[in-house]
Amino acid sequence: MSPIYLKPVRYYFSSDKDLFNAIKNIFGFYPGNIFLYKLAFHHKSAGVETVTGMKINNERLEFLGDAILDAITADYLFKTFPLKDEGFLTEMRSKLVNRIQLNKLAQKMGLDTLVQLDSGLSNQYKSFQGDALEALIGALYLDKGYKFTNNIVLERIIKHYFNINEVVNQELNFKSKMIEWAQRQKKQIVFNVVDEIGSGYKKQYIIEIEIDNLPLSRGQDYSIKGAEQLAAEKAWTKLNEEAQK
Amino acid sequence: MSPIYLKPVRYYFSSDKDLFNAIKNIFGFYPGNIFLYKLAFHHKSAGVETVTGMKINNERLEFLGDAILDAITADYLFKTFPLKDEGFLTEMRSKLVNRIQLNKLAQKMGLDTLVQLDSGLSNQYKSFQGDALEALIGALYLDKGYKFTNNIVLERIIKHYFNINEVVNQELNFKSKMIEWAQRQKKQIVFNVVDEIGSGYKKQYIIEIEIDNLPLSRGQDYSIKGAEQLAAEKAWTKLNEEAQK
Repeated sequence: MSPIYLKPVRYYFSSDKDLFNAIKNIFGFYPGNIFLYKLAFHHKSAGVETVTGMKINNERLEFLGDAILDAITADYLFKTFPLKDEGFLTEMRSKLVNRIQLNKLAQKMGLDTLVQLDSGLSNQYKSFQGDALEALIGALYLDKGYKFTNNIVLERIIKHYFNINEVVNQELNFKSKMIEWAQRQKKQIVFNVVDEIGSGYKKQYIIEIEIDNLPLSRGQDYSIKGAEQLAAEKAWTKLNEEAQK
Repeated sequence: MSPIYLKPVRYYFSSDKDLFNAIKNIFGFYPGNIFLYKLAFHHKSAGVETVTGMKINNERLEFLGDAILDAITADYLFKTFPLKDEGFLTEMRSKLVNRIQLNKLAQKMGLDTLVQLDSGLSNQYKSFQGDALEALIGALYLDKGYKFTNNIVLERIIKHYFNINEVVNQELNFKSKMIEWAQRQKKQIVFNVVDEIGSGYKKQYIIEIEIDNLPLSRGQDYSIKGAEQLAAEKAWTKLNEEAQK
């Protein structure tokens, strides 16, 4: 076993002691290759360009980490729910590692304070925290391999931040459900803003869901997102009623 | 190292000698837990039900294998193309492990002859071969772990069946490109059949692509798929011309 709980020699000569310590606090080990972790926190808005024009930021690591996280989550769910079908497993994975959830997780882990980004643009990139979490998992995978990453993600993230039995009972967001349903059925789904009522802070939106160009349901709310959710919930209920006829 | 190149003891007592040998031929090793591999070839049309009503088929393994294959492919591309950005990596992965490609691969590997499905329904389930390949990778992962699976997938599938430099130059299908573009830009994309011309075997379709309800391009062909591709190629060209202005 490698002495991952000891400070590596290069710690003492590094200008990145803070990052070494932050990783130790988050994951319980000192990183081997600190440069990977530095890169994981380099948001594209703060990325630098090499002489060849290549941008140095965390997007490649995010691509890798996203895939590794999906695999680890799939394995965990497969083994945790031996009697559930693949529809259940897919839905559970959506609940655990969707974009909103990843942003929340990253915040709880304190990653937001580590990300280097152009601070003027932080509102523009709302998912920079979740992206950094994925990139961090990519860095961990390259540094320590799959097995080690698997253990860390399970113990320090999934089992640490989720009560899996509660997640089972959580309602998934209906918009995702409808989009997944449409993809499975090879149907086109569109969320149209068909009307806006009022103005200023009293403004409400009406969203209509169309399936293969036929209207299915409408929702009304003060935000487009809220109206979409309401329309999607109605659509979901209609589909289930029809299926039971 | 475990003696994976020797026949396991249970081989000699097994009624599954053919499957043992088939796996050896495909991957170069004898399976440990043969039941996993049997399950991988159990299509849902031939699946059995347990007393609890649970269907025994390869769909759970397919869910797992799909995620493992994505992770292995992401790792391979990340390391093979150190100077390419995540857009390139995402596109390359779509080219390597899309549904059509997986079906072709499975056929080349001879998996179609191993899948147990209700033969009357084989036309209805066109992707049963690619699904079985994913399930097989899931079985391999459970049987032998990530590292072993990674090696087998790289050596026996990716490097064996693909010339990676040729894949780089292959044009990806434009419909996928447009859908990915719309997802990235958070825009709604719709492919509408706006007209049909002629009838019988001379019938042609006109497809219009709408972005956020505004028409962008049209394509005309004897099949809906063909018309979609043509419309998507025109749309793609338009977007690139606009980007260069």
